[in-house]
Amino acid sequence: MTQQPVEMRRHSAAHLLAAAVHQLFPEAKFGVGPVVENGFYYDIDIGRSVLPEDVEAITKTMRSIQGQNPAFVRQELPIDEAISLFVDLGQTYKVELLNDLKTKGTTKVNMEEAQEIDPQNVGTVSIYRTGAFVDLCRGPHVAEAKEIGNAWKLTKVAGAYWRGKETNPQMQRIYGICFVNKEELEAYEHMLEEAEKRDHRKIGAAQDLFFIDETVGKGLVMWLPNGTIMRNAVEALAVEMEEKQGYQRVSTPHIAKQELYLTSGHLPYYKDSMYPPMEMDDGVYYMKAMNCPHHHMIFKYGLRSYKELPLRLAEYGVCYRNELSGALAGLLRVRALAMNDAHIYCRKDQIKDEFKRVLSLVIEYFRIFGLKDYWFRLSKWSPDHVEKYINQPENWEYSQNVLRDVLVEMQVPFREADDEAAFYGPKVDVQFKSVIGREETMSTVQLDFVARERFALQYVDETGQKNGEVFVIHRAPLSTHERFMAFLIEHYAGSFPTWLSPVQVTILPVADRHNAFAQALSAELKEAGVRVTVDETPESVGKKIRNAEVKRIPYALVVGDKEAAGEALTVRRRGEKEQQSMEKSAFIKALLEEIKERRG
Amino acid sequence: MTQQPVEMRRHSAAHLLAAAVHQLFPEAKFGVGPVVENGFYYDIDIGRSVLPEDVEAITKTMRSIQGQNPAFVRQELPIDEAISLFVDLGQTYKVELLNDLKTKGTTKVNMEEAQEIDPQNVGTVSIYRTGAFVDLCRGPHVAEAKEIGNAWKLTKVAGAYWRGKETNPQMQRIYGICFVNKEELEAYEHMLEEAEKRDHRKIGAAQDLFFIDETVGKGLVMWLPNGTIMRNAVEALAVEMEEKQGYQRVSTPHIAKQELYLTSGHLPYYKDSMYPPMEMDDGVYYMKAMNCPHHHMIFKYGLRSYKELPLRLAEYGVCYRNELSGALAGLLRVRALAMNDAHIYCRKDQIKDEFKRVLSLVIEYFRIFGLKDYWFRLSKWSPDHVEKYINQPENWEYSQNVLRDVLVEMQVPFREADDEAAFYGPKVDVQFKSVIGREETMSTVQLDFVARERFALQYVDETGQKNGEVFVIHRAPLSTHERFMAFLIEHYAGSFPTWLSPVQVTILPVADRHNAFAQALSAELKEAGVRVTVDETPESVGKKIRNAEVKRIPYALVVGDKEAAGEALTVRRRGEKEQQSMEKSAFIKALLEEIKERRG
Repeated sequence: MTQQPVEMRRHSAAHLLAAAVHQLFPEAKFGVGPVVENGFYYDIDIGRSVLPEDVEAITKTMRSIQGQNPAFVRQELPIDEAISLFVDLGQTYKVELLNDLKTKGTTKVNMEEAQEIDPQNVGTVSIYRTGAFVDLCRGPHVAEAKEIGNAWKLTKVAGAYWRGKETNPQMQRIYGICFVNKEELEAYEHMLEEAEKRDHRKIGAAQDLFFIDETVGKGLVMWLPNGTIMRNAVEALAVEMEEKQGYQRVSTPHIAKQELYLTSGHLPYYKDSMYPPMEMDDGVYYMKAMNCPHHHMIFKYGLRSYKELPLRLAEYGVCYRNELSGALAGLLRVRALAMNDAHIYCRKDQIKDEFKRVLSLVIEYFRIFGLKDYWFRLSKWSPDHVEKYINQPENWEYSQNVLRDVLVEMQVPFREADDEAAFYGPKVDVQFKSVIGREETMSTVQLDFVARERFALQYVDETGQKNGEVFVIHRAPLSTHERFMAFLIEHYAGSFPTWLSPVQVTILPVADRHNAFAQALSAELKEAGVRVTVDETPESVGKKIRNAEVKRIPYALVVGDKEAAGEALTVRRRGEKEQQSMEKSAFIKALLEEIKERRG
Repeated sequence: MTQQPVEMRRHSAAHLLAAAVHQLFPEAKFGVGPVVENGFYYDIDIGRSVLPEDVEAITKTMRSIQGQNPAFVRQELPIDEAISLFVDLGQTYKVELLNDLKTKGTTKVNMEEAQEIDPQNVGTVSIYRTGAFVDLCRGPHVAEAKEIGNAWKLTKVAGAYWRGKETNPQMQRIYGICFVNKEELEAYEHMLEEAEKRDHRKIGAAQDLFFIDETVGKGLVMWLPNGTIMRNAVEALAVEMEEKQGYQRVSTPHIAKQELYLTSGHLPYYKDSMYPPMEMDDGVYYMKAMNCPHHHMIFKYGLRSYKELPLRLAEYGVCYRNELSGALAGLLRVRALAMNDAHIYCRKDQIKDEFKRVLSLVIEYFRIFGLKDYWFRLSKWSPDHVEKYINQPENWEYSQNVLRDVLVEMQVPFREADDEAAFYGPKVDVQFKSVIGREETMSTVQLDFVARERFALQYVDETGQKNGEVFVIHRAPLSTHERFMAFLIEHYAGSFPTWLSPVQVTILPVADRHNAFAQALSAELKEAGVRVTVDETPESVGKKIRNAEVKRIPYALVVGDKEAAGEALTVRRRGEKEQQSMEKSAFIKALLEEIKERRG
């Protein structure tokens, strides 16, 4: 038995699923059954919902069929013969697909459908037989069912409209996962469990960080006081780091006239992703699609001198996307995004230094958040597909070389990818592996050759001449507040480092008579800039300590007779069993240092 | 000659103006000629523009007519007779007004027109004769022209559409000012001059604080780096002060679904002032009209306990107003306003303390900005006009008494005004006299009895019962960033105190060989958190000092051989002729204290 690629196993597992359904429900009609990330699904129509007991039965039947090890037999048929075959089988959905292909000669099939029929080849189609089950399919498949292996599992059932259209019949979509071996399957399941435990929506609600409300609107985040503290702590980090790198902060409105987006090119191409237009007495306005056009207008305000370059304009600017309401999900898919945005305006010979600065900023962020498993991807144009890119071959070659040099000199791991650049210039994507092992792109650093033409950006050079060779770098290392908060929650599973924690210290008086001392201590900590609460509930100290743990507060100070009398404090660090006795001044000093250095 | 009230003088001066125009241009047709703040205007139609030489001639003629001292003779006429009279005189605009009054029996005249005809009295109208000139007018007027006095002046001419409608003929509006005596006229003219010198648009442009761009959109402020620094400094002040008073910060989206504004009552009543609706796939959305509905939703998130009250939610929230583009002016009339907003949710017995806290915050701001001439106005409901107010007589009486007690206890100057409250509760307006002597309302503290009903606000009281007696206080002591920046610019005439200054210190090397020392000193100051620049231009020190003065930088440090060798610095304070020698450490210490204490 040869080791089959995982995609082939997954696709064959989908057929195995269909074969089992066919055996259990001979009247079942089949939609499409494609490969997806980590597994597969099949859309079926058995005239009713698929129940949990059905899934069990289907799984059992799949194993039994797999045990008989049927072959996957391919056959090529003229399209009319295929149509007759599926008409005879009563497979009306398959017939619809085939008729579409035949009458429209269309290549307009979606990704899932393309796994069944080859839109380039209208004359003949291929079918696959697995025992009694026959399916329209492009293949390829494993030779026999055993090659699928046994690292698969059905996972869930959901309703799905035939071909994604609400007016079409609703089918049942049965999902499964499939890996090369049990270890990978288990690792994936473990990752899902971890992700579930660290779900930003659950922790966000448990810790009162944010909520999304139907009356206020979908995809619009309402930041509660705790979430606002974290949001502001992240923003303060960005401001501090950017200030050190010579960025200047600006503040621009959340709306703009359509003329600005016609200049930038967002209109008309990007219109569908933008909020609907608002007609005012002086023209048509839109919610911000991106921050760059506003920043370009600031660059253009007044004539710039070469002495001002590189000019770095930074703003946590909010952009708006008209996502479909059904696609919105927690903080990861929203309609308003506060971006850690900045634009750097520089000369060609300054690109290298500026890219280096940006990447070192990114690496510093990784250090702060304790991410070690990261790498970069240099996305380049393709000289073979020049029509996809702005026609400045010299700039492409020059800047790609410069970016590669930067990555080499910085001794960071990177890969190169041809034909993956943006239309307007090469980019460096920043990849990392999340705490649950998922690969993520946190941010992208993009070079832009086009903005200067669209916005007529220029500066006065050393000779007094106007020079239009202004290169723009787009960057947002901390992504958006929304996405970054989701990352932080998952990354720390809600146990945030002290500098990020909404409450940093809680004081736990043992009895009422210690409340006054607790309040005085609280005032002293507040004065020092610490976020502190006093737990005066009529609970036992044990209960108070447990509550502090549940709330994931980094430090709890137990205050009883001894503490109230002297200088030494009883300090409990979150997650540590042992408590520690510390002089008050030493505790405060250590705490402030930990916060300032953003440790943990 | 009796001392006539200034409004009567102004109205009579308008007639005098018309009489002069009538004498110089017998064919002239007259629109309306009302009293306005500080003076009057008259809309006339002479078939062409009024030129500067016309204004001179009109002024001369006015003086000459006034010299003849004609009487202002009132006459009552049945409306039909009045119509015949003005038809005979060819005064078509007056005829139109009279016909409107007659046919529609309308009381719908605008304020200016109401000065001519009494909308309550349709049967007869009054006219006034001044020599050969006759005018439709309600009066009253001075008895004879001399009583107008000689503290008047024509000031400017502008185009104005008849009755403000663009489709109507354009008339010429001649403006004049008129006071009781020369001193008041001169004081007013002096104030105008000062205002002109301190104009926030001029200084804003000269100091690169902000700009407004037609492509980005009217009424939308683009904050440049210098303006953003000031904006952030003001925001940091608010955050610091609010934190001390126990406010919690939140962050809410700039848009909301129409349902929220139907709940709040902004829709449909306030719709015309709001940005146009945006239709999304899940409903209709609007730009934020006010921040309160969002904050109320945060209050409602989760069940509140009495222990959480007073709950104080603060946010520099941005609100949007659909102002007509023609009405927009600099920072004072914009379409997007970042408000120093907060809402306090409290029990009835907490109103007093909370109002006191808010007023003490206001007074602290006045201290910081050096405003001494301020007072408060307690705006109450009127039991005689209960239909204008929410029907909670007990709450009105209770809270008005509480507010008065607060003002008395705080020993601040205040006045009371009946029938001036908002629909939903009494308020305290904060008035002050600006540096140029103009009376201003910076902010208002409002109590709100209605929000709790509209939003079903409630909390769980000591007995475990749900209690809907939640009172809301709306407050924005620092107004909006836009308006407050305009205030700051005018108040300081661009010479901002150090804590607000975009650049706090500039270092002036005497020669190139001092640049290195200057840069090291700059780095040291930057490290200490000071905003500093080094002037390395190839200018003389004298020129550099003058440039620093022009830029209104609080401190200039001249760095020559002596300074580069030793510890003492040569310090020039903005506006002071003498320079001072100071040890570096002493200078930095004093500077940081000045900034921290927000002195100056």
